[in-house]
Amino acid sequence: MRAELIAIGTELLLGHIVNSNTAFLGRALAGQGIGCYHQVTVGDNPERLGEALRLALSRSDLVITCGGLGPTVDDVTLETIAAVTGLPLVLRPAILRKIEVRFRKLGIRMPPSNRRQAMLPEGAKELPNSLGTAPGFLLKLDHVDKCIPTAESCQYLVALPGPPYEMIPIVEKLLLPRLRKIAGGAVIRSRTIKTTGLTESEVDKKTADLLQLEGAVTMGIYARPGQVDLRITAGAPKAQAAERLIASVEKKIRQRLGSLIYGTDDDELESVVGQLLRAKRKTVATAESCTGGLIGHRITEVPGSSDYYAGGVIAYSNAVKQSALGVPASLLGKYGAVSAQAAQAMALGIREKTGASIGLAVTGIAGPGGGTKQKPVGLVYIALADKNGAKSFKHQFSGTRAMVKTKTAQTALNLLRLRLMNKLAEHPASHGEGN
Amino acid sequence: MRAELIAIGTELLLGHIVNSNTAFLGRALAGQGIGCYHQVTVGDNPERLGEALRLALSRSDLVITCGGLGPTVDDVTLETIAAVTGLPLVLRPAILRKIEVRFRKLGIRMPPSNRRQAMLPEGAKELPNSLGTAPGFLLKLDHVDKCIPTAESCQYLVALPGPPYEMIPIVEKLLLPRLRKIAGGAVIRSRTIKTTGLTESEVDKKTADLLQLEGAVTMGIYARPGQVDLRITAGAPKAQAAERLIASVEKKIRQRLGSLIYGTDDDELESVVGQLLRAKRKTVATAESCTGGLIGHRITEVPGSSDYYAGGVIAYSNAVKQSALGVPASLLGKYGAVSAQAAQAMALGIREKTGASIGLAVTGIAGPGGGTKQKPVGLVYIALADKNGAKSFKHQFSGTRAMVKTKTAQTALNLLRLRLMNKLAEHPASHGEGN
Repeated sequence: MRAELIAIGTELLLGHIVNSNTAFLGRALAGQGIGCYHQVTVGDNPERLGEALRLALSRSDLVITCGGLGPTVDDVTLETIAAVTGLPLVLRPAILRKIEVRFRKLGIRMPPSNRRQAMLPEGAKELPNSLGTAPGFLLKLDHVDKCIPTAESCQYLVALPGPPYEMIPIVEKLLLPRLRKIAGGAVIRSRTIKTTGLTESEVDKKTADLLQLEGAVTMGIYARPGQVDLRITAGAPKAQAAERLIASVEKKIRQRLGSLIYGTDDDELESVVGQLLRAKRKTVATAESCTGGLIGHRITEVPGSSDYYAGGVIAYSNAVKQSALGVPASLLGKYGAVSAQAAQAMALGIREKTGASIGLAVTGIAGPGGGTKQKPVGLVYIALADKNGAKSFKHQFSGTRAMVKTKTAQTALNLLRLRLMNKLAEHPASHGEGN
Repeated sequence: MRAELIAIGTELLLGHIVNSNTAFLGRALAGQGIGCYHQVTVGDNPERLGEALRLALSRSDLVITCGGLGPTVDDVTLETIAAVTGLPLVLRPAILRKIEVRFRKLGIRMPPSNRRQAMLPEGAKELPNSLGTAPGFLLKLDHVDKCIPTAESCQYLVALPGPPYEMIPIVEKLLLPRLRKIAGGAVIRSRTIKTTGLTESEVDKKTADLLQLEGAVTMGIYARPGQVDLRITAGAPKAQAAERLIASVEKKIRQRLGSLIYGTDDDELESVVGQLLRAKRKTVATAESCTGGLIGHRITEVPGSSDYYAGGVIAYSNAVKQSALGVPASLLGKYGAVSAQAAQAMALGIREKTGASIGLAVTGIAGPGGGTKQKPVGLVYIALADKNGAKSFKHQFSGTRAMVKTKTAQTALNLLRLRLMNKLAEHPASHGEGN
C-alpha cells in the first residue's frame, strides 16, 4: 500500500509554521507497514490543491490530507475534495448537533460559518474530532472511481484537521486501527527506550554496535534537551515475531544503560515519578527558583497528581526564599542564593512547610544575564530532603534560558526518580548535562 | 517568480526527522518577494525524484532541491539532476582540491566515494559549502531548455545540501543575494497580529471581510489553544510600499479587535505582561492551583523577569492553600476550593505574603477526573488582587487536562495584561474560551 500525504496551508509554504504533522503521520503509517512515498504541501488554494489531489489519486493507494477543514473562507479542503471526486457535500445532522452543543457549552451561539464543517462528501465515514469542531473523514473510493477518471489506483482518501492536538488523537484512536485492518498481514512494531542523564554521544558510545543491526530490526538515536531516546523498529509477518525481535534488542540495551533508562514509548519522566510516589506511598513538594514553576507544571500534567503532590513555592526572590521557605538571610548572605547550602535549606524548608515526605528544590542561573566567573550561567544546584536530611547535586548546563530551565527540571525529576528507586548513587552527577 | 522546493530523504518520509529546511527556505524566499507554491518531499529514490523534478521544472520558475548530495550510494540528487536535464556531470578540480584539503586537515585520507561530490552538472555555478564536503550549485536553465522538453518555464535550478547547519549559511550568504538580483527588487513583508480571549470563529466573524483582500495583500487566521493569530502578508516593489499596505490593514484590524490584541510578531503574552509591569513599576506574585506552576514558568521564560516577579505558591492541596496563603478552612468548607471566594482569598493571600503589588490566583478542575455536575471539568476561577481588594472571573474551558491548563494560564496572563492597561472591563469574561 503506497501512501501520500498532502499538507494544506499557506502558513506552511511561507515557513511560518514548521510542518510536524507529516513527520508524525509518516511514523504512524510506517508503524502499520504502510510506506509513504510522497509528501506534498500546497497553500489554501483550490486550484493547486485540486491539482495535487488529482496527481496523488493517480499514483497512490491511500491519500491523506491534513488541514483546511476550518470554518473560514480560506479553508478549501472540503470543497476541493468534492470537486475532484465529483461527490456532493452532504449535511450530516448528527455532526451539526455536536458542533452546536460544543458552542452551547461555551455559552456562545454557533456562527453560521461553522455549519460548513458538518458537511462531508457523500459516503464519507466520519472520524470524530473530540477536541475541535472540524471532523476528519475517510472515503472509500472503489465505488466512485467512475467519477474520478484519474484515480487509477487510489482506494482511500482521508481528510484530517490541521492542528496537531486535534489531528493526533484522531489518527491514533480512529485511523490507525482502521488502517491496520486494511493493510493486513505484515506488521511493523517499534519501541522507544527513553534515557536521561547522558549526552547523545555518550549513549551512542554505549550502544553504537547495536545501531548496526541486521535485517528486519533497525535502531535510531534521537536527542532532545535533557533526554536521549533509542527507537527500535522491527518488521515481521506477525506482531508476535516483531515484538520478539524488539525484546531481544531491548534486553541488550537495558543491560548496558540500566537506571539511565526511565521509561519506554509514551512514558514521561513525570508520569514515571508519579507511579513511583504512588507505589511507595510518598508525597513530594517543590521549591523552585530558576525553573519558575516548570517542575510543578510537569508533575501536575499527570492526571491524579494531587494524590502525591502537595504543591510548592516558586521562590524567585530572596525575600520569598526567606519568608515562604524559612531559608535564613545569613545563609543566603554567606553562600549566595545559588549554592548547595541554599538548595538544601529550600528542600528542607518546603518539606517542613507542607508536611510532604520529600522536598525537592532547585536554584540556579538560567541566564542570559546574572552569571559571574565563579557562578556562570547554567550553574544549578538541585537538592532532595527527607526525614534524614538534605543532599544536593551540582550541575552545569549549557544552552539558552529555556534550555537551562528544561534541563534543570528534567534532572530534578530524574533525581527524584532515582531517590525513589534507592539508586541515587547511580546518578551521573555533575556531568548531568543530559544533552 | 514561482518557486518550488523539493526535499530529498527517506528519513523525512519515515518521520524520523521533522523537515525544518522547507520552512526556513519558505521564509527566506518570501523575504525576497518570491512566492513558493509547492513543497514536495521524496525519498532517496532516483525514479520518484526524477518525476518530482520533471513536474517542478514544468510548472515553476525556480526549483530548489535540498538533500541527497552526500557521498554515499543513497545520495542520488546529482545523478538524477543530470539525467533529467540531460547535462553531463563534469569533474571540477578546484572543488576536488577543497574536499581533499578538508580531509587532510582532519588527518583522514579522502575516501574515493567523496570524489563524486566534486562533479557538478555542466554550466553549474558552485555555491561553496564552508561547513561540509558537498557544495551546492545554481543552474541557469534558459540555455539548456532544448535538453529538457518539459522545462517550459523554469529558469533556475538550485541544489543545496540537506544538513541545516550547512544549508542555511549557503542560502543566507550566497543564494539570497543572487535571488534578490534575479527577482528584481520585489519584496514580501508580513506581520502577525496576536489575539487572545476569543475563539477562531469569533475573530473570523469580526474580520472575515478583511480576509478577502485584493491583490498584493493577503490575510490568514491561525488558532492555537487560547490564542488566535491573524497574519497579514503584502508584496510590493519596495519594502516601504509593502509595509504601508500592511499598516493600513493592521489599522482596520486594531479598530475592530482593540484590546483583544496583545502583541505582534515575536511578542509572547508573558513578555508583553513583563513590559507592562516594568513600565508601571508593579510586581506580581502567583498562587496557582490547577495550573500547577505553569503561570510562573511562563512569566520566568522572559529574561530579567526577576525584576518584577516575586515568586508564588503552587497551592495544589487544600492544606497548602491554608498554610501558605492563609485561606481560611471555613471558606474552603463553605464554598469549596474551586470557587470565586477561594480564588479571591488566594490572590489576596499571595499578595500579602510576598508584598507584591498584584496577586494573581487560579483555581479550577483540570480533569479528566474530579468534575461534578455543579463543578464540571474545565471550570476555572481566576482572581486578581491589589491594594483595593480582589476581583474574580469565572471561565469554562474545554479540552484535555493539558489544554485546560494552557488556556487557564493564557487567560490569567491576559487578565493581568488588561488590569495593567486599566482595561479589565474589556475582558470577554466567562466565554474566555479563546479557542
